[in-house]
Amino acid sequence: MSMKAPRGTVDILPEEAAKWQFIENKIKDVCRRYHFNEIRTPLFEHTEVFQRGVGDSTDIVQKEMYTFEDRGGRSLTLRPEGTASVVRSFVEHKMHGNASQPVKLYYFAQMFRYERPQKGRMRQLNQFGVEAMGSSDPAVDAEVIDLAMSVYRELGLTSLKLVINSLGDKESRENHRQALINHFTPHKDELCSDCQTRLVQNPMRILDCKTDRDHPAMKTAPSILEYLNDYSIDYFDKVRTYLELMGIDYEVDPNLVRGLDYYNHTAFEIMSEAEGFGAITTLAGGGRYNGLIEELGGPDTPGIGFGMGLERLLMALEAEDVKIPASQDLDCFIVTVGDEANKHSVKLIHELRNSGIQADRDYQGRKTKAQFKAADRYQAKYVLVLGENELNQQSINVKEMATGNQDEVAFPQLVTYLKGKLSGGNDNE
Amino acid sequence: MSMKAPRGTVDILPEEAAKWQFIENKIKDVCRRYHFNEIRTPLFEHTEVFQRGVGDSTDIVQKEMYTFEDRGGRSLTLRPEGTASVVRSFVEHKMHGNASQPVKLYYFAQMFRYERPQKGRMRQLNQFGVEAMGSSDPAVDAEVIDLAMSVYRELGLTSLKLVINSLGDKESRENHRQALINHFTPHKDELCSDCQTRLVQNPMRILDCKTDRDHPAMKTAPSILEYLNDYSIDYFDKVRTYLELMGIDYEVDPNLVRGLDYYNHTAFEIMSEAEGFGAITTLAGGGRYNGLIEELGGPDTPGIGFGMGLERLLMALEAEDVKIPASQDLDCFIVTVGDEANKHSVKLIHELRNSGIQADRDYQGRKTKAQFKAADRYQAKYVLVLGENELNQQSINVKEMATGNQDEVAFPQLVTYLKGKLSGGNDNE
Repeated sequence: MSMKAPRGTVDILPEEAAKWQFIENKIKDVCRRYHFNEIRTPLFEHTEVFQRGVGDSTDIVQKEMYTFEDRGGRSLTLRPEGTASVVRSFVEHKMHGNASQPVKLYYFAQMFRYERPQKGRMRQLNQFGVEAMGSSDPAVDAEVIDLAMSVYRELGLTSLKLVINSLGDKESRENHRQALINHFTPHKDELCSDCQTRLVQNPMRILDCKTDRDHPAMKTAPSILEYLNDYSIDYFDKVRTYLELMGIDYEVDPNLVRGLDYYNHTAFEIMSEAEGFGAITTLAGGGRYNGLIEELGGPDTPGIGFGMGLERLLMALEAEDVKIPASQDLDCFIVTVGDEANKHSVKLIHELRNSGIQADRDYQGRKTKAQFKAADRYQAKYVLVLGENELNQQSINVKEMATGNQDEVAFPQLVTYLKGKLSGGNDNE
Repeated sequence: MSMKAPRGTVDILPEEAAKWQFIENKIKDVCRRYHFNEIRTPLFEHTEVFQRGVGDSTDIVQKEMYTFEDRGGRSLTLRPEGTASVVRSFVEHKMHGNASQPVKLYYFAQMFRYERPQKGRMRQLNQFGVEAMGSSDPAVDAEVIDLAMSVYRELGLTSLKLVINSLGDKESRENHRQALINHFTPHKDELCSDCQTRLVQNPMRILDCKTDRDHPAMKTAPSILEYLNDYSIDYFDKVRTYLELMGIDYEVDPNLVRGLDYYNHTAFEIMSEAEGFGAITTLAGGGRYNGLIEELGGPDTPGIGFGMGLERLLMALEAEDVKIPASQDLDCFIVTVGDEANKHSVKLIHELRNSGIQADRDYQGRKTKAQFKAADRYQAKYVLVLGENELNQQSINVKEMATGNQDEVAFPQLVTYLKGKLSGGNDNE
């Protein structure tokens, strides 16, 4: 019986989930300040959305997609990356007609890729990403990169490297493409079978090949930067100037081509340089995709975005030993003695919780001493003891665990008393 | 070309997404107070998890699952409901051995059911749910129901009906089962084909049939409440007493059996009674599932939980005309005049955002007047104007849009100035 999570997937258990919540809240706040708004697209799309939107020649589409037919015979695919779905939504909802342009969106989404699972590469993974569509101002490219860097910086990462490149516009790419074909064709038989296909379909992606990376022809391959036309040179210069104005360090890597077919002009990756981070150092990657919106049935509209792996973000935080504040303590635990007190505690805990106070109690029929132990395990700040005496006097004994101080508090005053203590307690922390 | 979201799925666009965020934050806060912690399980499971965990005879498993083989030949199924996945995780991670019991978990998760799409019933839907595992104290049943009611009440819903029932323990159910078989067998040929199967597999679910609801034998069918043994009667009495202590109104409906196979003792549903809410009025449903954890390979451990549809929650809020506070305005918009100002604004906006201030600017090469219009569309509270004069004086013109008041603010003072204004502004709202 297979009663484990499927291979390449994991459960995020409560202690981990608290960290995820912290990170997501921080990222949402950065997005708010940068004026990006959330979009949520379905988990799956018609397969064609990814064939066209990611590119038929990519590893993702050829090897890694979870594709299946639904009971109505539609070919559906679980989202393998974020951009194609958001662009499909942009086109379907005619957002190019929105009064406010560019349309700036962000998403949190699970992605699915059928790969050999390894550290930092799971079959179900979580990404945060943004897409800014409708503007071809290089300041948007800088803004999108700035946003990604701000997320990392505000979460406390310091060992980061930003690498950028320009893939140029259509004309520049075409000239470079021809140069690459001329360069690699004499070596065709020495390249891996994937690269032999790439030589015809998308020779730029040969530069990204992990199998052929050490082939001598790689080092002497013509650089895209030598083939940029004036518009593309000026565009790239502006992006670089803006990054410098914002004080964001970067390196230019002319071999950075990204794994997807649709990029042009700015491409970028952010890597962790933390020691012991592991072999896969890319934390986020993105680029400009003018032309993609048209490919997916919309009008010719420019766009740029990135995707950021959240599992890898957590790994990078761990590698840099950044502590995430994820509180696991409890405001109040109610200890009861006797059946009547136990019964009354049902009413009491309802009132506390609905007055804004976090509270828990025993549900295991534990004896008094074991109830105190349970309170300790939950790191309860206050233990409220309710017995026959207290019930007769309509009051409760409140013990502050940090100091051992105790008070008898009448029922009608309890909420006010605890709220005062708990807000005061926060000041002292 | 199918460039629309797949049938039965929708995009949640930014204005809607802001409402979702508000609701999710409210629910997370209720869960914090009730001391439930978040768990996140994968989108899909081995198909067997649902066959065993939901029940082979259910409509969900028989008709509605998205089941497919991955590239490794595994049969996987997109999660059609929440409990089975959480229980699988509980078993896999041996949470029955946790020091703190019961284990109280909550989740937000997309669910997938291949049904005919209609208002309030989509193929991809969003649920919030909780599971409390490890205690058979009826106070936990009351707590879980209380939590669900608190979520609705705190969000502002008032037209709600809570319906509860007891399905009894194993012995009570077995006696009732035999009585149902005796009762319905003479009418077998008059029942729908599903019910003819149910008569053998799970006769209690005949009571839930929408096709046969008006058959005369339904009215005279033996009620589970007549077959409860002493333990089950006492259990149900306690749950009712606790609900009454908490001031939660309810109705008992002996025909409430829920669509899943695994329930026993407490079953409950919460319905909207808002006018014009539509035909499907159930907002949330749940119950106790002692035995399920064992069925999925764990030790004999009691459990109870519920699932709450979030699309239906939003529909109910709309039906009751509850307004969700989801702010769409913008703190600052920067208007620039001239190339140098435009360039400098890249640095300026970076600084504002990284000081905690929400800001946006023009990326469409708009003239000054059109930039002001864009600021209006974004409902900017402050418009910052930067031209050649301002740049020479290293200052910026800040206009408060609500009052028309203007100030010249030197660059080094800008962040402090805006923060003062913006926090003051919040006090007046």
